Amino acid sequence: MKAPAVFFLSDFGADSVYLCACRALFIRISPNIPLIDITHSIPPYNITAASLILEDIAPYFPPHSVIVAVVDPTVGSNRRIIAVKNQTLTFIAPDNGLLSPFLDNATVFSVTNTSLFNQTVSSTFHARDIMVPVAAHIASGMPLKTVGAPITDAVRIAIPKPSIKKGKIKGEVISADRFGNLITNIKEENIIKAFKTNDLKKLSEEVRIYIGMNRIEKFFRCYADAPLAQPFGTIGSFGRLEISVREGSAQEALKAEPGTSVTLFSLRKQ
Amino acid sequence: MKAPAVFFLSDFGADSVYLCACRALFIRISPNIPLIDITHSIPPYNITAASLILEDIAPYFPPHSVIVAVVDPTVGSNRRIIAVKNQTLTFIAPDNGLLSPFLDNATVFSVTNTSLFNQTVSSTFHARDIMVPVAAHIASGMPLKTVGAPITDAVRIAIPKPSIKKGKIKGEVISADRFGNLITNIKEENIIKAFKTNDLKKLSEEVRIYIGMNRIEKFFRCYADAPLAQPFGTIGSFGRLEISVREGSAQEALKAEPGTSVTLFSLRKQ
Amino acid sequence: MKAPAVFFLSDFGADSVYLCACRALFIRISPNIPLIDITHSIPPYNITAASLILEDIAPYFPPHSVIVAVVDPTVGSNRRIIAVKNQTLTFIAPDNGLLSPFLDNATVFSVTNTSLFNQTVSSTFHARDIMVPVAAHIASGMPLKTVGAPITDAVRIAIPKPSIKKGKIKGEVISADRFGNLITNIKEENIIKAFKTNDLKKLSEEVRIYIGMNRIEKFFRCYADAPLAQPFGTIGSFGRLEISVREGSAQEALKAEPGTSVTLFSLRKQ
Repeated sequence: MKAPAVFFLSDFGADSVYLCACRALFIRISPNIPLIDITHSIPPYNITAASLILEDIAPYFPPHSVIVAVVDPTVGSNRRIIAVKNQTLTFIAPDNGLLSPFLDNATVFSVTNTSLFNQTVSSTFHARDIMVPVAAHIASGMPLKTVGAPITDAVRIAIPKPSIKKGKIKGEVISADRFGNLITNIKEENIIKAFKTNDLKKLSEEVRIYIGMNRIEKFFRCYADAPLAQPFGTIGSFGRLEISVREGSAQEALKAEPGTSVTLFSLRKQ
Repeated sequence: MKAPAVFFLSDFGADSVYLCACRALFIRISPNIPLIDITHSIPPYNITAASLILEDIAPYFPPHSVIVAVVDPTVGSNRRIIAVKNQTLTFIAPDNGLLSPFLDNATVFSVTNTSLFNQTVSSTFHARDIMVPVAAHIASGMPLKTVGAPITDAVRIAIPKPSIKKGKIKGEVISADRFGNLITNIKEENIIKAFKTNDLKKLSEEVRIYIGMNRIEKFFRCYADAPLAQPFGTIGSFGRLEISVREGSAQEALKAEPGTSVTLFSLRKQ
Repeated sequence: MKAPAVFFLSDFGADSVYLCACRALFIRISPNIPLIDITHSIPPYNITAASLILEDIAPYFPPHSVIVAVVDPTVGSNRRIIAVKNQTLTFIAPDNGLLSPFLDNATVFSVTNTSLFNQTVSSTFHARDIMVPVAAHIASGMPLKTVGAPITDAVRIAIPKPSIKKGKIKGEVISADRFGNLITNIKEENIIKAFKTNDLKKLSEEVRIYIGMNRIEKFFRCYADAPLAQPFGTIGSFGRLEISVREGSAQEALKAEPGTSVTLFSLRKQ
């Protein structure tokens, strides 16, 4: 079965000529399948950041899409390359934990079939020489088991999860977008669990956010509802708690960055 | 009728994962229509900058193209989303003035048909949840009136226009490109109106440019005709007066930026 | 014969609206041929940097691809535009030396057939008005000789080549990537010629690298083999000597940049 698209994430940087080398090999194998960029602005070597983005974006991919994700500081070592298939998607990535969010209930293969690789394989650029060509073959309908033998010991990394108690959540900032919105590892479902509501008006009354040393009093459902210049909490477009400033940058206003602690606690006696 | 392409502008930033979410939804609805980036580097929230760029680029789009343009600081409020159709193009954007240059003699609809939207609609990301899916449906041939009811009161913003008198034009810088060329809101037709010529040699003899506190003496038709290091005026590739420095940056040389005043006046007695 | 793809390089900057104007004209002529970005982050006006990147990436393009490469400081002057055809690829670029690496044994035409150009031709943007439309026509199967008359005097520039002696190579840094890897103009074949080996263990024993005032002791075949924080030499993914730091930036560690000298010499008596 042909894939509707292949999605491509890396830490190579937007507009890198490395991406063009990958695209040039891809089009030789799969000229009629679109190769769509997820982002290539992952901070260099940051496997966790890549995992978090993949987790957020994966639900939007059409069924039977193939995803190739390359943050690969140990390229050329004996680290494996894996193909991971769940109900609707197939992922190709280095076996360094990047695909941790997708390993449960998935079929995992070690990619070893050199006949699928580029004719020459460098020791520093396996996106071009192995992963993108293999993704192109899979997208074109090649059975997944062709890539190599199944494995059950794929590497997992611990994605930083918030601690959730009745009336209290401790989490952290995981990224900031171009608008300075601070995206956290606290999901809407975590808020419901800790505070029994996701109603933002109720949260404004009952819950406060500490981010670093700053206290935030209010939650709003969209930027236009908030006063200017005053940071507020909202449920962002991927279901995560975000700290925003209307037509401004929460990142600048709060001097926060990935890793900054974010604590929510209830004003009501627990 | 199918669109030859959908063109996409936003202030999300190049290589943003937000763009990928839009593309993923687009390809589900319109797998065979290209989705082409205009730019996503519009300064955050800057509706005017987006309007000016759309005005310049629109003449290059193939007839029957669809354009989706998202600079949307009031996303999630009661601001409308509109579809605007003129003779050759169809635009989708928030009803915040972004499409002002295209409203004259156009048919305008309020986009309200939720059956065209993403299954869940967030309050912070209507590009993904509404505008791109609707653009994809229109591009695939859906009659435009399907989107909602016609309206006649779309929001307009005042795009900064130059003041033109006999022998004098007052305008301003609207943007700078990567080369440091300063692009102004003064068009070739304005120059012809004020000075009765667009001949650059004649303009060099008769007209001077003040940009901020700097006086510019010469006009040249291309960079290679100009001396190095000396700012000059030219008619840029979108028919606007631009201030340039050959193999250098006028932006740096003149310390100018969007909003810096640009005045042209004739040396001849009026 | 139709091209499998057109590849596009420029110094316009990633996400520039200038690229969209080019794409819009391209799709009118060649709606079914992919237009793939090489990079648009060439330093402004830097013809040599563009040549070096084209030389590295060209072997990856599918046979019969068309390449349009625009770094064009003398746009609008009497500099020619050329089409260069070698065994497998066709290039379009300004005649300013950009295509120097591809001129040997190639057929070269001066592009003068105005019927292939945009209806109006500006004096500052020939990528949009001439080169991309001409590339689109060629990619669609138009015979190359249609573009204009053959010429034999295309402009060549001297690409900085390393000096190679027995036991010694003098070269330089030509670029840095997003990871801070320093890419040099010294190729694997140069190393074999000077030191009779490309075995990195042997090179570690017998050869030292000076980059600026820094001495580098070791060569490794991949980043994971190297100790952290210690710069080392490797053969990069395009067959060039690169100086890297494992999970760090050699560019920052060594304060090197394009033009910084890189000397290799043998510890053995010659």
